Amino acid sequence: MPLTAEQEAEIAAARSARSETARPTVPALETLLFQPLPVLDHGFIRVIDYMGDDGAIVQAARVSYGRGTRRVSEDAGLIRYLMRHRHSTPFEMCEIKYHVKLPIFVARQWIRHRTANVNEYSARYSILDREFYLPAAEHLAAQSAANRQGRGDVLDGTEAARVMDLLRGDATRSYDHYVEMLNEDAPGTPRDPGRRGLARELARMNLTLNTYTQWYWKIDLHNLLHFLSLRADPHAQYEIRAYADAMLATVQAWVPGAYQAFLDYRLGAVTLSAGMLAAVRRMLAGEPVDQAGSGLSKREWTELTAALAGQARQGG
Amino acid sequence: MPLTAEQEAEIAAARSARSETARPTVPALETLLFQPLPVLDHGFIRVIDYMGDDGAIVQAARVSYGRGTRRVSEDAGLIRYLMRHRHSTPFEMCEIKYHVKLPIFVARQWIRHRTANVNEYSARYSILDREFYLPAAEHLAAQSAANRQGRGDVLDGTEAARVMDLLRGDATRSYDHYVEMLNEDAPGTPRDPGRRGLARELARMNLTLNTYTQWYWKIDLHNLLHFLSLRADPHAQYEIRAYADAMLATVQAWVPGAYQAFLDYRLGAVTLSAGMLAAVRRMLAGEPVDQAGSGLSKREWTELTAALAGQARQGG
Amino acid sequence: MPLTAEQEAEIAAARSARSETARPTVPALETLLFQPLPVLDHGFIRVIDYMGDDGAIVQAARVSYGRGTRRVSEDAGLIRYLMRHRHSTPFEMCEIKYHVKLPIFVARQWIRHRTANVNEYSARYSILDREFYLPAAEHLAAQSAANRQGRGDVLDGTEAARVMDLLRGDATRSYDHYVEMLNEDAPGTPRDPGRRGLARELARMNLTLNTYTQWYWKIDLHNLLHFLSLRADPHAQYEIRAYADAMLATVQAWVPGAYQAFLDYRLGAVTLSAGMLAAVRRMLAGEPVDQAGSGLSKREWTELTAALAGQARQGG
Amino acid sequence: MPLTAEQEAEIAAARSARSETARPTVPALETLLFQPLPVLDHGFIRVIDYMGDDGAIVQAARVSYGRGTRRVSEDAGLIRYLMRHRHSTPFEMCEIKYHVKLPIFVARQWIRHRTANVNEYSARYSILDREFYLPAAEHLAAQSAANRQGRGDVLDGTEAARVMDLLRGDATRSYDHYVEMLNEDAPGTPRDPGRRGLARELARMNLTLNTYTQWYWKIDLHNLLHFLSLRADPHAQYEIRAYADAMLATVQAWVPGAYQAFLDYRLGAVTLSAGMLAAVRRMLAGEPVDQAGSGLSKREWTELTAALAGQARQGG
Repeated sequence: MPLTAEQEAEIAAARSARSETARPTVPALETLLFQPLPVLDHGFIRVIDYMGDDGAIVQAARVSYGRGTRRVSEDAGLIRYLMRHRHSTPFEMCEIKYHVKLPIFVARQWIRHRTANVNEYSARYSILDREFYLPAAEHLAAQSAANRQGRGDVLDGTEAARVMDLLRGDATRSYDHYVEMLNEDAPGTPRDPGRRGLARELARMNLTLNTYTQWYWKIDLHNLLHFLSLRADPHAQYEIRAYADAMLATVQAWVPGAYQAFLDYRLGAVTLSAGMLAAVRRMLAGEPVDQAGSGLSKREWTELTAALAGQARQGG
Repeated sequence: MPLTAEQEAEIAAARSARSETARPTVPALETLLFQPLPVLDHGFIRVIDYMGDDGAIVQAARVSYGRGTRRVSEDAGLIRYLMRHRHSTPFEMCEIKYHVKLPIFVARQWIRHRTANVNEYSARYSILDREFYLPAAEHLAAQSAANRQGRGDVLDGTEAARVMDLLRGDATRSYDHYVEMLNEDAPGTPRDPGRRGLARELARMNLTLNTYTQWYWKIDLHNLLHFLSLRADPHAQYEIRAYADAMLATVQAWVPGAYQAFLDYRLGAVTLSAGMLAAVRRMLAGEPVDQAGSGLSKREWTELTAALAGQARQGG
Repeated sequence: MPLTAEQEAEIAAARSARSETARPTVPALETLLFQPLPVLDHGFIRVIDYMGDDGAIVQAARVSYGRGTRRVSEDAGLIRYLMRHRHSTPFEMCEIKYHVKLPIFVARQWIRHRTANVNEYSARYSILDREFYLPAAEHLAAQSAANRQGRGDVLDGTEAARVMDLLRGDATRSYDHYVEMLNEDAPGTPRDPGRRGLARELARMNLTLNTYTQWYWKIDLHNLLHFLSLRADPHAQYEIRAYADAMLATVQAWVPGAYQAFLDYRLGAVTLSAGMLAAVRRMLAGEPVDQAGSGLSKREWTELTAALAGQARQGG
Repeated sequence: MPLTAEQEAEIAAARSARSETARPTVPALETLLFQPLPVLDHGFIRVIDYMGDDGAIVQAARVSYGRGTRRVSEDAGLIRYLMRHRHSTPFEMCEIKYHVKLPIFVARQWIRHRTANVNEYSARYSILDREFYLPAAEHLAAQSAANRQGRGDVLDGTEAARVMDLLRGDATRSYDHYVEMLNEDAPGTPRDPGRRGLARELARMNLTLNTYTQWYWKIDLHNLLHFLSLRADPHAQYEIRAYADAMLATVQAWVPGAYQAFLDYRLGAVTLSAGMLAAVRRMLAGEPVDQAGSGLSKREWTELTAALAGQARQGG
């Protein structure tokens, strides 16, 4: 994530700016503002702006005039109650805006969350940077044998080396040809006056899916938490989970009450189906229950056993 | 809009609070923050929070790091270009939150705009105030003869007096019976221990549609401008237009560049259909054109004539 | 729900129309098409149109060409898997359209579900019917002492009679005055030529919230099930639950596979928080656990106990 | 767009299936159902299902019981009125579902329209086909000098040949390496037992952006027309416009009344800003007006002149 000197100066200037406001302000998030938090090899997230705090959730739930009139313990209890019972609208009263740099194949998963505002860097107007994602050795995993959309063991030796060579080589070559087809003036590669240059909107099709793009992404807290519940999940692809994990840290700084409730009632929660619940009741009554006797499918039984053993949440 | 002393104290406290922030801040909007702007006889709007400014629109359009690096005139030109060409996503990067007190029949029109976040005062949990909208004399209009959804001349004399008596009488009686059915302790009306009291979620059905409710309403600038283009329009019902007009003033304070572009390219603009455009071309070529020769329906011809005469925008 | 003879004839004609189509068609839902299913005292729901079936969910999940190529048991298993793991997009591929007649206070709860298409009868254009909801004796409940938004015991005797008198009287009087203010020609009440008549958009404000309105409401299956999970819940207000229950029957006819999965994994499911799950694990290990030792709040402990006792789902 | 024999048989079977239905049915669209309409070199659109017709728009606008009770000419006039005045909700009462095969860089533009339901072929689960978009010679355009996001003249001679070689070569090589890294059994390329194979979710990042993907895409008519107004516009990139044009043909078959109104009042319409309108009024009054005297910016003046000269709609 090499920032130019100009970019670093702009970020430093934005970070040191100070205005007076009567709006709810969160000092812990102010210290993170504008600062790139590195993700993957060249990506980052930056908090660009925010609206509201834990108090704004409470205020909306109470639809009352004041804030700060109740004790903090009551506010925390109310936020926990709202989260537990999926009263989602008060969480929609907080909003956050990120600047994200991410590989295109991650952007394609991400954009499926429709309830957000997006402005993406346009490769119709502008030329993308020469940056592409290459997995670190510990993330270069084989296809899982058990799970059609999962990863298995890490590749090693010759196979890993060959994969890295292919990924690096194809991304590099495709990018270099992209620049050649564009034929625009660039540092170190002056324009060839004998060629017209291919339209940017066409040349971009030659790039590989690990090329980095960037966007501004703005979302309310309720929908952000929904995004994070799916993307910070162990079943999410590692590359998008890395972004979700970085964002969780910003949520913790921003709305610590909502964050804790989210851990307890969403990320750490398990949903038991009617059948699973019946099985648990029989177990609690001292009855021995196995899969065959439970009436559950093998898959559900496995999920129930995992949940009761304290493993990661079921889900997919 | 009688605020209690407690509410006024809370608003004063919120207005005088000062925090330091590195976020974009708009001094002209800060002076309006939290302050109730009266609408109709008991309603108001209050700006509760905001995110972004004119610069945030430009920043999203440029998806660049810095802000303030370009001249103001260029920024203004870019905002105008975005508005003219309906590039809507940069305007979505600004967000505003209002607290609104409004009659229920206005709330029912308002809520049809789905792209917003809402927390409404709940009459399942709480008791509504004894406030209902009664039109001022100059807004007590007859049904329009020309337009099935419009107003005609103002009522006067005996008829106006009778209408006001009915509206006031029915709203008052229905509210008083609501309180009687609830049978809850209230200032001046102690609970009758001999009655159980009807559930709040049922008793509310006795209220008339001019009873006031209130909500928090949060929306991005693009969708707010769309709302205002429909509701600040002369064809909108006066009672919701009064709210739209009050909100326009807050938009002007918040994002003056976007506001001016909105006036020029949306509120003051006219859309000419293919047929209307063909008629205008013939007129400009010096050809006399009348409705029969224009190929336009009578309705369209009337709309075109009005637009060219400089009257209010066509619309519905 | 008194339909006019003309309406009944139109419905009969629509029901007996037959076209040939190559689209997925569900005979069990065809038999319900257009037919009003009564709800409350004057309301109804009618299925007006639908798109897709259980097979369309499977087809979208497979994003493959064919349908019917797999065995039914596999399809059912796939639908159950999708429901259990909240893979929601395949359920969005089915769509249904209802015509609903409902009291305004119910419509105000309903409309808060924003992910649907709505066309409501407009009281700016037209005159509402003389129909208002009056609760049956067994639904005339007192305010719950335990739950701020719930109902307690049924009212009886003098209090019930008085409440019914007030509800009926105020609704009737307000409606009659509405008609008087409108001063339009109507069967039995000719227009008074000496009065102009109040604009429809104003006169409607005199109506009480139990007046019936109607709308077309179109929604995809995923969002419909979300609506039903909230509104068919025991914590929902009875009056909207009555509509949800009627709609559940149409879902069962339409997509029986998705319906059964919905019962098992949503309506009948329970979500255990991290803390609840820890308590259950200790119970299963034979450890005695009480509220104090569980680390759960009293409210959560009560919810857990209720879930394990097989009572209605937690929720709110 | 080479379909396998199995796929062709399935499509033929679906097309020849016949069910009876009481739903609104559109014979002209039934003849198109399921049939792939070719777009670009390997892409297509197929109509998979639909709900509603022109009559459903009228029905929703009337929120009345019957259909067919008014004359066709009145229905057409009502649809035109609704389109002209942007009454959008009745158009939301129709829904259509497409199966689309399209290059990934087109899919990335397309998905920015958020008000639709999407199920995309998943390269986490499955292996993408060996198909990539290569522009036909007449679409291999240079960057426009005038417009940062447009195309200029077509490339020819050596430059065109070189560009085609690069596009074909990089796409082919990247795809072949994708298959090599996957190391799965495939026709003609048996698995190498000495290698584990890279996880599908990782290997896909090596593909170029012109690789074809496919999805089911479901949308209501209002939002479809909004999509088409942007994507069938001359300023849209040719590759997505090709899809929009194919879809326009299906809209014409499906809802001919709405289609004609859309041409007249949206695709063929021009929006004049307040300033443009003032200039036109002066012209019509016989006053000579040039850019300097008009008060319009150069850009706006150019747009106005183009509109009055009958050129393509302004827009961007």
